[in-house]
Amino acid sequence: MEKLKTVILGASGYTGAEAVRLIMGHLKLELSALTANRHAGKAYAHVYPHMAHQGLPDLVKWQDVNWDGTDVVFACLPHGASEDTIAEISRPGLTVIDLSADFRLKDAELYAQTYGRAHTTPKLLAGAVYGLSEYARADIKQASLVACPGCYPTASLLALLPVLDLIDADNIVIDAKSGVSGAGRKENTAFMYPETAEGAHAYGVGTHRHGPEIDAQLSTALGRNITVSFTPHLLPMNRGMIATINVELNQTVTPADLRAACIARYKDEAFVHVEPEGIVPHTRHVRASNQYRIGIFPDRNPRRAVIISVIDNLTKGSSGQAVQNLNIVKNWDETLGLSMVPVFP
Amino acid sequence: MEKLKTVILGASGYTGAEAVRLIMGHLKLELSALTANRHAGKAYAHVYPHMAHQGLPDLVKWQDVNWDGTDVVFACLPHGASEDTIAEISRPGLTVIDLSADFRLKDAELYAQTYGRAHTTPKLLAGAVYGLSEYARADIKQASLVACPGCYPTASLLALLPVLDLIDADNIVIDAKSGVSGAGRKENTAFMYPETAEGAHAYGVGTHRHGPEIDAQLSTALGRNITVSFTPHLLPMNRGMIATINVELNQTVTPADLRAACIARYKDEAFVHVEPEGIVPHTRHVRASNQYRIGIFPDRNPRRAVIISVIDNLTKGSSGQAVQNLNIVKNWDETLGLSMVPVFP
Amino acid sequence: MEKLKTVILGASGYTGAEAVRLIMGHLKLELSALTANRHAGKAYAHVYPHMAHQGLPDLVKWQDVNWDGTDVVFACLPHGASEDTIAEISRPGLTVIDLSADFRLKDAELYAQTYGRAHTTPKLLAGAVYGLSEYARADIKQASLVACPGCYPTASLLALLPVLDLIDADNIVIDAKSGVSGAGRKENTAFMYPETAEGAHAYGVGTHRHGPEIDAQLSTALGRNITVSFTPHLLPMNRGMIATINVELNQTVTPADLRAACIARYKDEAFVHVEPEGIVPHTRHVRASNQYRIGIFPDRNPRRAVIISVIDNLTKGSSGQAVQNLNIVKNWDETLGLSMVPVFP
Amino acid sequence: MEKLKTVILGASGYTGAEAVRLIMGHLKLELSALTANRHAGKAYAHVYPHMAHQGLPDLVKWQDVNWDGTDVVFACLPHGASEDTIAEISRPGLTVIDLSADFRLKDAELYAQTYGRAHTTPKLLAGAVYGLSEYARADIKQASLVACPGCYPTASLLALLPVLDLIDADNIVIDAKSGVSGAGRKENTAFMYPETAEGAHAYGVGTHRHGPEIDAQLSTALGRNITVSFTPHLLPMNRGMIATINVELNQTVTPADLRAACIARYKDEAFVHVEPEGIVPHTRHVRASNQYRIGIFPDRNPRRAVIISVIDNLTKGSSGQAVQNLNIVKNWDETLGLSMVPVFP
Repeated sequence: MEKLKTVILGASGYTGAEAVRLIMGHLKLELSALTANRHAGKAYAHVYPHMAHQGLPDLVKWQDVNWDGTDVVFACLPHGASEDTIAEISRPGLTVIDLSADFRLKDAELYAQTYGRAHTTPKLLAGAVYGLSEYARADIKQASLVACPGCYPTASLLALLPVLDLIDADNIVIDAKSGVSGAGRKENTAFMYPETAEGAHAYGVGTHRHGPEIDAQLSTALGRNITVSFTPHLLPMNRGMIATINVELNQTVTPADLRAACIARYKDEAFVHVEPEGIVPHTRHVRASNQYRIGIFPDRNPRRAVIISVIDNLTKGSSGQAVQNLNIVKNWDETLGLSMVPVFP
Repeated sequence: MEKLKTVILGASGYTGAEAVRLIMGHLKLELSALTANRHAGKAYAHVYPHMAHQGLPDLVKWQDVNWDGTDVVFACLPHGASEDTIAEISRPGLTVIDLSADFRLKDAELYAQTYGRAHTTPKLLAGAVYGLSEYARADIKQASLVACPGCYPTASLLALLPVLDLIDADNIVIDAKSGVSGAGRKENTAFMYPETAEGAHAYGVGTHRHGPEIDAQLSTALGRNITVSFTPHLLPMNRGMIATINVELNQTVTPADLRAACIARYKDEAFVHVEPEGIVPHTRHVRASNQYRIGIFPDRNPRRAVIISVIDNLTKGSSGQAVQNLNIVKNWDETLGLSMVPVFP
Repeated sequence: MEKLKTVILGASGYTGAEAVRLIMGHLKLELSALTANRHAGKAYAHVYPHMAHQGLPDLVKWQDVNWDGTDVVFACLPHGASEDTIAEISRPGLTVIDLSADFRLKDAELYAQTYGRAHTTPKLLAGAVYGLSEYARADIKQASLVACPGCYPTASLLALLPVLDLIDADNIVIDAKSGVSGAGRKENTAFMYPETAEGAHAYGVGTHRHGPEIDAQLSTALGRNITVSFTPHLLPMNRGMIATINVELNQTVTPADLRAACIARYKDEAFVHVEPEGIVPHTRHVRASNQYRIGIFPDRNPRRAVIISVIDNLTKGSSGQAVQNLNIVKNWDETLGLSMVPVFP
Repeated sequence: MEKLKTVILGASGYTGAEAVRLIMGHLKLELSALTANRHAGKAYAHVYPHMAHQGLPDLVKWQDVNWDGTDVVFACLPHGASEDTIAEISRPGLTVIDLSADFRLKDAELYAQTYGRAHTTPKLLAGAVYGLSEYARADIKQASLVACPGCYPTASLLALLPVLDLIDADNIVIDAKSGVSGAGRKENTAFMYPETAEGAHAYGVGTHRHGPEIDAQLSTALGRNITVSFTPHLLPMNRGMIATINVELNQTVTPADLRAACIARYKDEAFVHVEPEGIVPHTRHVRASNQYRIGIFPDRNPRRAVIISVIDNLTKGSSGQAVQNLNIVKNWDETLGLSMVPVFP
């Protein structure tokens, strides 16, 4: 079988580089172009030396890609740039997997409030499918534009969706923690080693853009509007994300019920694993893999429980889920290119 | 003025070493003995090379200390060992500052449940003062045995006590994070660099021993029993602790009210700082200092707020607060030996 | 084709776990047993949680393995234990890839001096092949026991062997640096996070056991005995190794000559890459891969040059080279199971 | 006694912040102004949150400082900017301690070659004293402009100067390693956490600007020109520097002779410590202190020895030595403001 011609839009960001890594190990895809307009003309190894010696194409402007000869594009651009570029390149037969935030919120007004700019491609938005892989397979299969969820929403939603009927959805407290790669590759002193190593801090308290995305998905699932508490933190590590979710149990519900609901929901999933009782998931144990692990614990307060999920923010939280979504679109084995064992230590 | 003869019991642990560091910069104290029974006879630099070239005494067994000639002891021993040793050495005129858990819980039965051993020194327990410095000055001044609070309780209590009347005390969710030094110096693969670097995880979910201590203090303050949610995490950093506390506001109370209450309570404190609106405290910004910083934020959920506190777990969370307590006992300026500027980066 | 039944001896160490990771991605091998006598009976995930959810066999004692039904064994045991165990299990048809130091030094007396114990299996030693893959293919193909080189020797030898005739072999200065995983998984406070993070130090100065191994190989290549200067350092990182080698150039030789010699030697190699002029190799750019990268630079002193090599100590420096050696023994494509793209960031 | 009015020029860099930290603990100095032209008008805590709550002055432009009322200035500016600014502000009675490279090289042509710009203040250069504290006290005492050595030169020179007559000065190989703070606070992706954590690399191989500075000082000491080999590396740590120096011993000289020479030279020094035989210095054991530690070891090659020195690059390698130099100028106890115990862990 011929491999599908695959383009990475925005290959100079971390999610772009992770998409490249995963696609290089995917039997049905080949990288036909890597774009990065600021770096067009450079070898990819100039931007990402770990990619040297692999025969990868040089970086080009997206305008110089042969889009008619392209089968698949992973858009790894910042929001705004993403929808603008996708609007230019989308055409029949091209599958677009978007890793930006541009098509995650169905409500264009909410998008405008959240991202500080009007949405400019309402038709594309209408057709986009929110690609939380384990929950949207039927829609993803039909999609030509898949909006991959944010990393925090991925971590939070897979933990909450199976138990939503068992808890007080108006009292969900999500305390989330991310590695520094989640901030992207930025010329900003705030992400220098001395400013992020050997310490930790919350950020975007009450205001982080992934809050509305989590709300929107949970509200849709519930059929009514809820607002979660959500506090993200930046931790001194390259990769990894934890969501520690404190929930209030409905009357008569026990933590064991939450666990049972999660197991029932995920028992046939390739990437989602419910940890045995007492086992706490660590981010380092899913590093560089597409795994998602959940632990469920009794809280000290007997009316509450603690759900802890971990992912690699760049893999299941971004480029890995993107590849998984493409596998779904193409009706391939969902694990194609994604069966990497976690890298530890 | 002659300096007080000061002994560190258990100088081979991290809190012991931090006590040594602080006392070396304290004008009214001199280190007359450092004990570490397993290492007796060795130079202190053998155990802690950063302490070389300082003229410190060699390590001895606690039995070999001249206790009658001692004015102050900082007990930096594990629980159990601490009360046993303090029972042997305590005598009139000796001020004992205990950094272990042995005298933190006034209820001996709760202690037994929590620490898995019966309390053996009820008389000492009865006389011990819980040394949350900013809240117990009057009692500390009279004390001959001060029980220094745990690191997580310190981080949590200073943030919660000023606002307890403004929030639903039955719905306090504390998500806490600590650097690895909090685990102590242990021959345990679990704390090796490859097992703790570049990743994060929760631990002791629902069961950590500092939970009952937090409950006890808040319940006393409230006059009724409450149970907090409390989930600690281990982060890849040497020092530092965050408590991210999600609280439900009482009717008509706003986050600004919480801030005002904190400012009112702490405006004259040397070590406790309420951050200006919008400023998120980082652990690295209090590193190696005795500072405590609090930020207060509106939650996404308008009925809730987020209180974030940071300390250095070894300083304000342990040995720094211990020195502060001694300063209170002795009626000295509370900042003696504790005015270090944070070390950044 | 049926997969070869593969056993990991000593699967509870870091090199054992890395071997498991690599073999799980190798199309011609299947893991039939994992041994760890101290942990026999436990799930492998109990020891290495990142390996959970993969259907791996539980840990067993090596005595309980069906050795007659085994095709390949990777011995990831400490020295001493390795030769003792291999002596018990070796039999016709079993390929033994040893990652320990036991068969690296052909001179049993030198082994005894270096490792502080007599060599007990001289016959095995006589038959063992030193498996520096790129230099010993002919011998490895015939071998039933391959002694994989140490990590420092691998890093050093591949950089030096092509240029040995161009430099003063009596004045080779190797300054080497390793990540903490190189120390193995040990219950030792010296490798705790707080003792190894945020700082660096040399160790084994003048005495490290890999010195004689480097000497032995270079001396064999030269046909006369030489002694290299070799100073290893421990760096705060999980994986990665650099050898910074300062050499004195022979008369009329230039750094460009060294580069040309390296390129000539390695142009057809899959894993060894000579960086373009001016490009400095980073350990993070080969992380979790079997790559070896070399940079060659003019020194400030015009009579000298600097050769810098990087590897992942657990992969090309240990388990990756071990798999490469098995591929050679079996006459397979040398990159089988080893074509992973480096994981960055 | 009144405290001397002290200004930090360039307080927004890491060496500026370290100077602020040290001066806040110095009994004879008070910070009268902090300059940072790009940030003029902001609170210092806006730029360095760890400095909040200390009553420090806001940042101003250097043009707005009352220079006539200033006693001491620490110039923490980039090279070029430093000499230009110092030229504007220098006046009788003002002591200038310069931390930049502008006055380190007495040879203006060498400066131009090395720094890529012509030196513009030859008169200042002629009067400047190279402030390697332990070697230049007599001159420093007379100086109104002290040029503080670079971090690598400090690490290298104190280790080499006492032994220069005992070794082959034409074969000195310095392999040096620095923490990331040494690069300064820069908006550059190269110093982001993901690009510098969990890996290591050499940089400036053969070309680093501190090479000529080391040469110049050693050549002056020897009375003839030499060129050292010098390869710096960037390590994943905030602070700390190692110089691992491989030297060829003169005939009949032993490593013990080097040690004896170092001990003889430094026995009365407050900050320089020669480690006992067999003790390897770690950067983490001098962290945040002004200590300098040296270890001397036999090399594997009996004609050679290894000298290892460690400092905190921001303290003894920069701002600490700067304060030490001011203490010398003012004829104060050299340890004033510098007696901090290292911070470990």
